[in-house]
Amino acid sequence: MSLEMNLQSSITNEITEPFFTVTHPSNEPSIQGRCGLLRLPHADVQTPVFMPVGTQATVKAIPPQDLESIGYNLILGNTYHLHLRPGEESIAALGGLHRFSGWRGAMLTDSGGFQVFSLKGLRKITEEGVLFQSHIDGSSHMFTSETVMKIQRDIGADIIMAWDECAPYPSSVEYQEKAMNRTHSWLLRCICEYNNSGRLSTGGWPQALFGIVQGGVEERLRRESSQFLTSLDLPGYAVGGLAVGEDALHRLEAIKWCTDILPKHKPRYLMGVGLPTDILDAVSAGIDMFDCVLPTRNARNAQIFTTTGTLNLRNSKFREDTSPLDPKCKCAVCQRHTKAYVHHLFRVKEMLGAYLTTYHNLFFYHNLMQQIRDAIQSGSFVTFKETFVAEYLSAEEEPQDDDQ
Amino acid sequence: MSLEMNLQSSITNEITEPFFTVTHPSNEPSIQGRCGLLRLPHADVQTPVFMPVGTQATVKAIPPQDLESIGYNLILGNTYHLHLRPGEESIAALGGLHRFSGWRGAMLTDSGGFQVFSLKGLRKITEEGVLFQSHIDGSSHMFTSETVMKIQRDIGADIIMAWDECAPYPSSVEYQEKAMNRTHSWLLRCICEYNNSGRLSTGGWPQALFGIVQGGVEERLRRESSQFLTSLDLPGYAVGGLAVGEDALHRLEAIKWCTDILPKHKPRYLMGVGLPTDILDAVSAGIDMFDCVLPTRNARNAQIFTTTGTLNLRNSKFREDTSPLDPKCKCAVCQRHTKAYVHHLFRVKEMLGAYLTTYHNLFFYHNLMQQIRDAIQSGSFVTFKETFVAEYLSAEEEPQDDDQ
Repeated sequence: MSLEMNLQSSITNEITEPFFTVTHPSNEPSIQGRCGLLRLPHADVQTPVFMPVGTQATVKAIPPQDLESIGYNLILGNTYHLHLRPGEESIAALGGLHRFSGWRGAMLTDSGGFQVFSLKGLRKITEEGVLFQSHIDGSSHMFTSETVMKIQRDIGADIIMAWDECAPYPSSVEYQEKAMNRTHSWLLRCICEYNNSGRLSTGGWPQALFGIVQGGVEERLRRESSQFLTSLDLPGYAVGGLAVGEDALHRLEAIKWCTDILPKHKPRYLMGVGLPTDILDAVSAGIDMFDCVLPTRNARNAQIFTTTGTLNLRNSKFREDTSPLDPKCKCAVCQRHTKAYVHHLFRVKEMLGAYLTTYHNLFFYHNLMQQIRDAIQSGSFVTFKETFVAEYLSAEEEPQDDDQ
Repeated sequence: MSLEMNLQSSITNEITEPFFTVTHPSNEPSIQGRCGLLRLPHADVQTPVFMPVGTQATVKAIPPQDLESIGYNLILGNTYHLHLRPGEESIAALGGLHRFSGWRGAMLTDSGGFQVFSLKGLRKITEEGVLFQSHIDGSSHMFTSETVMKIQRDIGADIIMAWDECAPYPSSVEYQEKAMNRTHSWLLRCICEYNNSGRLSTGGWPQALFGIVQGGVEERLRRESSQFLTSLDLPGYAVGGLAVGEDALHRLEAIKWCTDILPKHKPRYLMGVGLPTDILDAVSAGIDMFDCVLPTRNARNAQIFTTTGTLNLRNSKFREDTSPLDPKCKCAVCQRHTKAYVHHLFRVKEMLGAYLTTYHNLFFYHNLMQQIRDAIQSGSFVTFKETFVAEYLSAEEEPQDDDQ
């Protein structure tokens, strides 16, 4: 019996059966979007869902109770960063990342693949794994399927990701195929390690392992990768290696090649995407889960998302603008604060500025996902998407005129 | 009739009569501490009260709703900083500082005297006022009694401070006397300007003008200054020019010379003080109001106030410390987060660290003031002070061992 067959037979449905349910398949024939429910040890999560990124055991600039009050109950942590500081042993000793960070909802950790393959420094890729240098102190670290599973076990997220190779964009088809095959082989080792440890976190709760489809923007590779992963009957599937420089049209095509094949009764997670319009497209194509740094990173640069597009509040035209950040937004920040005030805070470099824009942007994304779920359930997603996009693209942002 | 007499006769009791009430004089003979109620346009404030410092239209690192949830309803703004950015005309155009910053409680603005006299750059002091250069762009600005009253009228705080000269420490008695006399003469011009503008903010609500006692640590000067100010029958009085380098013993003496003379039915505000132990001493001496940057500034350097003294959470000994910041504290941060987590946040330079320590420290100060008010009302202030100080000084902080 091959390693692959051995692994397949050893994956039971103990975790996967109650893990995800499609609660509302779309009744609109032109879309594959659906609503679902992820039942995780630390929260029940409605999909389609957006996960804020909590790189270093915190979603930057915002405390956990504000994430809760917005309505988030699933956030992402970065294995690469948490491995470097404080280190997975420390996290495990302190009871896992939930307890360590005071986050009471559910969590997903990435595998570190994206970060390690983005490192500028010395890096040696072999079939065994990747030897790399820390971006902080240059110390050497080896990530393999086994170490990455071990780190994520210690961190203790509800959902963990397989170790993968994210090929740079653009890459030759040959390199993309090589990276895909290595990702597949690493996945088999991840599953082995996952099963050997009882699929449990160091803290004792079950973890759901997601495999990652690679293959760049090559149809043959994406389909082959999706088929291979589907055959392994994992709890969930991610589409990785996108949002790395390709245009939105090619990205959407690549997503569709994957969702065409990935099983309908499993959650599908599009990694690192994206803009509101990208999310709407991907939901249409059947994606259930998203994460992206844009709402938080851009917030720290004074950029806000609004129903009529993005605005940069550093722009001097907002100096005496007494309107809320987004007059149509119902978030706590828009109920209390004006563009002029946030403009002032960024101008004088007060950190409260980053807090207010982060809160607003995360509310905007959460509200978008709620609207998406409502529209799917009422069979009006296509109309909602058209209306949202038309309004969102209605106002072109003016060139930035920093008022520092 | 002299200018002084003219001013005195023109100060009616319209604002001052309902403005402050001593609700609980102490029944402990050894102390002058008392509880009171300040009735301000934007809040009723119980005294003794601590005011967090909101330099640039924000208490650094913490949003207004958190200040409210802790229980604060009076904060301080800095005239000097707000004059430079965004400028008082902008603030007035936007409806005053309350509306500009989204703060729903009451506010006090200082006169800018402390900042202007602390400036390192070019500065020209005359009887007319002070010509100084902005620390931001070197632009020239002139602060006089009239301009400072005008700026504070535009900012629109509930309590405004007279323009004063804060002599550096140490200074010759001659210089201290000169600065005191200038402060008195400037105060008379402030009162004139205050009365001429109807004692109203640009936004239309009444403002209470406090005079500032100067005189360094010289008994003769402090008594003379207190007597002069008392004769003017102002809504309230501040003790300025302290916490500039003198030791705690001399400071307390200087405070007592002032509170001996200042009228008992008026609020007394000790500017820029201080540590919890300093506050307890000053309350004993009859001080009602405090402001200080220590809880917020030190928070941003990872220092927390606890019932057993201060701790610096950057210290590596907290790396795996799973206890709350202060096990006896009931604040939201201590209910959720550990020393190890805050240590991690400072180590990896995540701004959430500053938020958590700021919240905790401001809760600690607010709770201290609540305990002080309770103790005065129950006639147990002396005992409370002894118990608090003994516990607070029980653990000496170890030298810092940064774990960066």
